[in-house]
This record gives sequence, C-alpha cells and structure tokens, in this order.
Amino acid sequence: MKVIELSQGGGGVESQQLVQQLFYRHFGNEILLKSEDAAVLSLQGNTAFTTDSFTVSPLFFQGGNIGNLAVAGTLNDLAMMGATPLYLSCAFMIEEGLPFSTLEKVVKSMAEELKKTNAKIVCGDTKVVPQGAVDKLFINTSGIGQVPTNPQAVPSAHRLQKGDAILISGDIGRHGAVVMSARDNMNLQSDLKSDCEVLWPVVESLINKGLSVHALRDATRGGLAAVLNEWAQTSQVCIEVEEDKIPISDAVQGLCELLGFEAYDFANEGTFVMSLPCSQVEDALAVFQQFEFTQQAAMIGKVTEFQPGLVILQTPWGSQRVLELPKGELLPRIC
Amino acid sequence: MKVIELSQGGGGVESQQLVQQLFYRHFGNEILLKSEDAAVLSLQGNTAFTTDSFTVSPLFFQGGNIGNLAVAGTLNDLAMMGATPLYLSCAFMIEEGLPFSTLEKVVKSMAEELKKTNAKIVCGDTKVVPQGAVDKLFINTSGIGQVPTNPQAVPSAHRLQKGDAILISGDIGRHGAVVMSARDNMNLQSDLKSDCEVLWPVVESLINKGLSVHALRDATRGGLAAVLNEWAQTSQVCIEVEEDKIPISDAVQGLCELLGFEAYDFANEGTFVMSLPCSQVEDALAVFQQFEFTQQAAMIGKVTEFQPGLVILQTPWGSQRVLELPKGELLPRIC
Repeated sequence: MKVIELSQGGGGVESQQLVQQLFYRHFGNEILLKSEDAAVLSLQGNTAFTTDSFTVSPLFFQGGNIGNLAVAGTLNDLAMMGATPLYLSCAFMIEEGLPFSTLEKVVKSMAEELKKTNAKIVCGDTKVVPQGAVDKLFINTSGIGQVPTNPQAVPSAHRLQKGDAILISGDIGRHGAVVMSARDNMNLQSDLKSDCEVLWPVVESLINKGLSVHALRDATRGGLAAVLNEWAQTSQVCIEVEEDKIPISDAVQGLCELLGFEAYDFANEGTFVMSLPCSQVEDALAVFQQFEFTQQAAMIGKVTEFQPGLVILQTPWGSQRVLELPKGELLPRIC
Repeated sequence: MKVIELSQGGGGVESQQLVQQLFYRHFGNEILLKSEDAAVLSLQGNTAFTTDSFTVSPLFFQGGNIGNLAVAGTLNDLAMMGATPLYLSCAFMIEEGLPFSTLEKVVKSMAEELKKTNAKIVCGDTKVVPQGAVDKLFINTSGIGQVPTNPQAVPSAHRLQKGDAILISGDIGRHGAVVMSARDNMNLQSDLKSDCEVLWPVVESLINKGLSVHALRDATRGGLAAVLNEWAQTSQVCIEVEEDKIPISDAVQGLCELLGFEAYDFANEGTFVMSLPCSQVEDALAVFQQFEFTQQAAMIGKVTEFQPGLVILQTPWGSQRVLELPKGELLPRIC
C-alpha cells in the first residue's frame, strides 16, 4: 500500500512530487501553479478574512469527510458575512503512514466542494509528522471573500433589532448526531447524513432578492444555542424562540432522547440562522424553497425587548425556559 | 496546575473565556475584537496571501519557540514577495492537558514577534483535541500583505538572469542544527541559537534603497540547497556558488561533520537568499550591515549560462560538483 512518508513534507524532491502529482492536479489554477512563497491576488473593495482548522474524527462520515468540511466550513464563514468567497489557502498536517488513497479521496472531495462556488485554492502547505504526532490528518483552510460595498448589506451579530424574525435554514443537529454515532459505532437510522454543505448559493440568492439580512451565522460548534446566545448578548436583545417550530429530524431527536442531549447544542455544518425584519419572512422562505438542502427552513422566533441578553424558549405547553450557552465539551473533534 | 481542557475548544462558555482572557488580551486590536465569523479588511492594490502550519518539536528551543516561528515564518513568506505584512490569521490545535502556562508563553512570544512589523492578528480559531490526537500544540498562520504596485518590484523565482549575483543574508543552518541537537539532547556549544527572525525590516530597507531585487526566498525546509535548485529550475539558469563564501558557524559545521550532514540542507528560519544585478552587490551589503542579524551577509555566487537548471558548487580546491535538491527526510517537525 502506498502511504505518505515523512520525506513528502521535508521540502525536497519528494515534497515537490506530492504537491505536483496530488495538489496541483486537483486544485490547479493559474495562481496556485505559480508556486511562489505567496499567491498574488487582485481584490476589489472590502475583504473578508477567516481561518478554521479541521480535526474531525472519523475522517469519513455519512454525508461527507474532513475534505468537504474544510472547504464548506471556511466558505461558509465568508458567506455568513455576506461575502462572495474568492480564495482559499489549504494546509495539510499529515501523520506519516496515512494511506495515499485516503489523502487522495479527501483532496478530490475538496475539489468537488470547491465547484459549488467560484472560489479557488491559491496557496498551501504540507507537513508530514511522525506516527503519533497527529491522528491521521488535520486540515486548516483560511479564506478570502469580497464584502458587499454597502455596509447595510453586511450581516453582523451587532445588528439584531426588535421586530426581527429569526429563521433557521434547515433541520438542526445532523452533523453532531452523525459524528457521534459514527464514533460510538451506534446503529442509527441509516438515512441520517451530516448537513455539511456550501451555503453561499442560498445566501447569494437571499442577498440578490434585496432582503435586509441583519445577521447570519452557521450553527457549528455549540449549535443553535451558541449562535442565539451570542447574538442576544452582542446586540443586547431578547430572542424568543418557539420550541415546536424548530425543525429536528426524528433520527436526531431519537439520539438526543437516548443520550440525554439537546439538539440545540449539536453542531451543524450546513445550517444557518438568520435575522431579518418580520415583514420579509415570506420572501426569505420562498428563496429557501429553491434549494434542495433548505426545504426544512422555518421561522423559529422573534427578537424582542423582553429580557435583553437572554434566549427564551417557549415550550409547546406554554411554559418558558432560558436556553443557555452550551457548557462543557459535548463532543471533541466534531469538525 | 492549570491545563487546557477539551471544553475550551467546544464553542461554548469555556471557549469564549479562553479567547477573551488569553488571545484577545495579547493580540487584541479593533478588527479582532469585533468577533465576527470573518475579519473585514480594507486593502489597497495587489494582495499577497500565504499559509503555513507549525509543528516544531520541541516547542521551545534555543532562540525561539513555536510561537515566534509561527509569526516570523508567515511574515517572512510575505516579505519574500516584497509585500508589506499587514494581517495574520492564527489557528491553534491544542492537545488536552497542555499546561496553560505553556500556551500563554507561546502567545506572549507571538505578540512580541508581531511588534517587529505593523502586522496584526485579525482572526483565529481554537481546537482542543483529546490526548494523543496531536503532540502538544500545532499552530497555523495565514498572512495577507500588500504587494508593490510596480510588477518589476515583485521578486520571483522566475526572474533570475545571467549576470545576477546570489547573496545570503547570514550564516546558514542554525535553526536545523538547534532543533536537531535539542531533540537528541546533544551538548552543542551553548551559544548556538536558531536564526528565527522577522525579515521584513531588512527587506523593506533593501526595497527603499531602490535595489532591483530579482528573487528573494527564505531558506526554510530543504535549506539553501532547496532554494537554489528551485530557482535554477524555475528560471532555467545555472547558479554557480563558491563553497568557501557561504557563511557557516563553527558550531553548525561541527555538528554536520559529526553526523554526516551538509549545512546546505539544514533549515533556516530567518536567513534568506537574494538575487540581484552584480552591480548592486555593494549597496545591498551596506544595507545588511545596518541590521544586527544580517552581519554575516555575503555574496556567495552568480547566475550564469553554464548548465541551465543546475546548481554548481565550486570547491576551494578548484573542483566542481552539483548541489542537489535534498532528498529524503532530514529532520521531521523542524518547523
């Protein structure tokens, strides 16, 4: 079996070969192929810049792998600023002995995922470390995108206001549930897949529709609960959510009940929360209906002045409770 | 002892605390403190973009640590394009149980190193993984810089030409020698330190002097041998180097003789190679004399048409040999 060797991260002959035969082959574009110390980009207007490392275990799971995730995750961080994704860096940290075919599969997934936008990988780095120094493969991607010129078109955690509606783009908790069940070899219903997805196409459509999107955030680590709490605190507003409006699949709900978790705390990798004026909810839901992966989108709550800084969950039985920021470590290496 | 816990990478309460108490405290600036999904930057002209992961072992070595290295390394990749370093991302991958004081020491070193230019850390990411999933600490930094508007002022591996002189900014191989001896608990002469250094101040002075710098490259993994070979191949020129002009400290030379290595293959982290017209060598050396860490700078060779694509080493005894691109893995986790 062909495996990755230490020499392929050493900066010499074997490194050059790996870069040319694998990375240039699948990611190749005019800028990357210049092979300089840094890529030279021509950017217009304001630029969004973000970084994320991916350490997910297992590397492959229902609905994706560390490669899709590393591309989608960083493209999504740009999309959540309303920014058109343009360029990515890509840094591999590889454990000596990783099968070449595993790395190749990951790289191919990244190339596929990239095709969902016009973004390109323009610079990279490869480190190979001895066995035991890293568990198989970590990937870091940093991203650059173009921010809308109109500051009112840039979503922000500071911009929530009374009268806003809170929408979710799909059913929650699937990525967390899939990784958790893969890790524990649990037999979940086999149709449950990670929601891992590139969100820019739907965000672009929302922007092009002329909607006044006040805030956007993908509900990754910490899940829906973390996003809503961060928003409530940052904008000093109250977010009142109706529990029975939050879309949750039976499979995720079942796993949560089994293990005593709440789906609100579970990570998502292609599901986002949006705040915009109540008057625009119908238009927004119409946009969500155009995309296969946002068919479950729903309005789940409102921004009010009730208890500034808090997220209040209205139960179907008429009672209320505070939805808190998740504490402790729910599941390490979820992304 | 206070140690890093899994929950500090989970996206909840404990993550927020770590970010605020450690990263914001030492890296804090207006852009970073906005805490959005991505930093928003206002850039002018062409932009350089680069990424690098740091996996060095041990974390602390004579003359630096993984923190200095992670800042200097990426700033240097920008500087080697003639680009003014502006912004960095910073992603920590931390093993559960790492002493908080270790991370704090690394973060403080990064903040110190940043002060050598006007560059700021504007976005970041923190992952904490279970024991055994990573060896203590890996760091990825990506960097953004401003490229000179005149294309003739942008150094490139494609721009070497007959009549150019090849200069080195200091004595070679120190970083590789220090890490190797630290790893093997060898008792080297105690004054040997890594050359780890931020190079932008000297590069900026060379540019401001109006020199026609054709190519610049820091001689990191693969050392001087890798840079010269890449240049000879990319520009299809011959690089003829005089062996006895290459500055090497006695300590590094001694280690090489002891272990059967060549200092040309050893990694450097603050030493660069430059190609520029022979007529400008005196002016360049005068600039190098202004900086403490480039006192050993020297002209070491010339670009000729002798054997295009090859690097030829002229020995002090009048013989010649080809200096090849390093093969195999000299020393894993050097950076």
